[in-house]
Amino acid sequence: MASVEIDQLTNALARLPGLGPRSARRAVLHLLKKREGTLVPLLRALETVDAKLATCSICGNVDTSDPCGVCTDVKRDARSLCVVEEVSDLWALDRSRLFPGRFHVLGGRLSALDGVRPEDLGIDTLIGRVAGGEVDEVVLAMNATLEGQTTAHYLSERLESFPVRITQLAHGLPVGGELDYLDEGTLAQALRARRPVA
Amino acid sequence: MASVEIDQLTNALARLPGLGPRSARRAVLHLLKKREGTLVPLLRALETVDAKLATCSICGNVDTSDPCGVCTDVKRDARSLCVVEEVSDLWALDRSRLFPGRFHVLGGRLSALDGVRPEDLGIDTLIGRVAGGEVDEVVLAMNATLEGQTTAHYLSERLESFPVRITQLAHGLPVGGELDYLDEGTLAQALRARRPVA
Repeated sequence: MASVEIDQLTNALARLPGLGPRSARRAVLHLLKKREGTLVPLLRALETVDAKLATCSICGNVDTSDPCGVCTDVKRDARSLCVVEEVSDLWALDRSRLFPGRFHVLGGRLSALDGVRPEDLGIDTLIGRVAGGEVDEVVLAMNATLEGQTTAHYLSERLESFPVRITQLAHGLPVGGELDYLDEGTLAQALRARRPVA
Repeated sequence: MASVEIDQLTNALARLPGLGPRSARRAVLHLLKKREGTLVPLLRALETVDAKLATCSICGNVDTSDPCGVCTDVKRDARSLCVVEEVSDLWALDRSRLFPGRFHVLGGRLSALDGVRPEDLGIDTLIGRVAGGEVDEVVLAMNATLEGQTTAHYLSERLESFPVRITQLAHGLPVGGELDYLDEGTLAQALRARRPVA
């Protein structure tokens, strides 16, 4: 028998992706039973993040400082800029620690269906960063979807007048991918972009 | 690229049942991007519950008041008492709205393996409630596990000297259960407890 307050907590948790009403209830019971070990740390962490949360005015990342930790990291190569659709893409690439440069988050992708136009995305700020002359290479790291690739194509046209190298992520077989299970689109890309054996 | 504060929030969420590091990260991104709609309500709900959280001194339920909402509900039949192992069992039975009486949470089950003895459970408070003479029937609603049934057997012996009716949940086929897929234990119980067709 849950009180109004506990129900509100359950509902707030159930709105998170990956949790439904049932798993939210289990999570709440866990929080209530292990108050010191789970509820209090979660509460403190939420308070801190809520107080400090900011969108980076340079790259569009969300972080607890503005400019964000990536933009202020002096060990990163500021002359190399990786453009992504969403903050989650930035985090995914950053986790892999493979890209030593900085990022730029568009905040979406061009989409006729959803009515997303160039002015709805962080494209002007990107052009501004490139026009500033601080960048040598722009890596277009859009998703390999129709809308992602449309966005990449649009950006490459907007950027071609600047003296920067414009690249995009390679398309082909994913690691561990078996030909038999891959879609024709991926196979076609992999075949078209085939490279001489070193 | 997540700051220390965001990492702490991810870790706090990842400790909840049903969430791992990956889904916690997705949940955090969701919280950060939809701050007003998700982060703030979750924060407020946690604050309220943290401030009010209490274990009911009568029945052992966790709620935002003591005595809890079940014990103070005057529409419930105080002469009928349902004994359960855990708070989650109380919530499950209460959600079904099938039991109109009150509850008593033991806080576990007797277990030689885990070293849980009668004095570790809320048995003395149960005896106290029954000895007070306010109860006509005690429903033993332990899980249909070996330890649950051991606990029910122990409780029925402890309670037999009191002038109360002691019952336990019926065992048998679950609704929708197909004989072919049910274990022998359930079939044996169902056969042993067979009833004349009305």
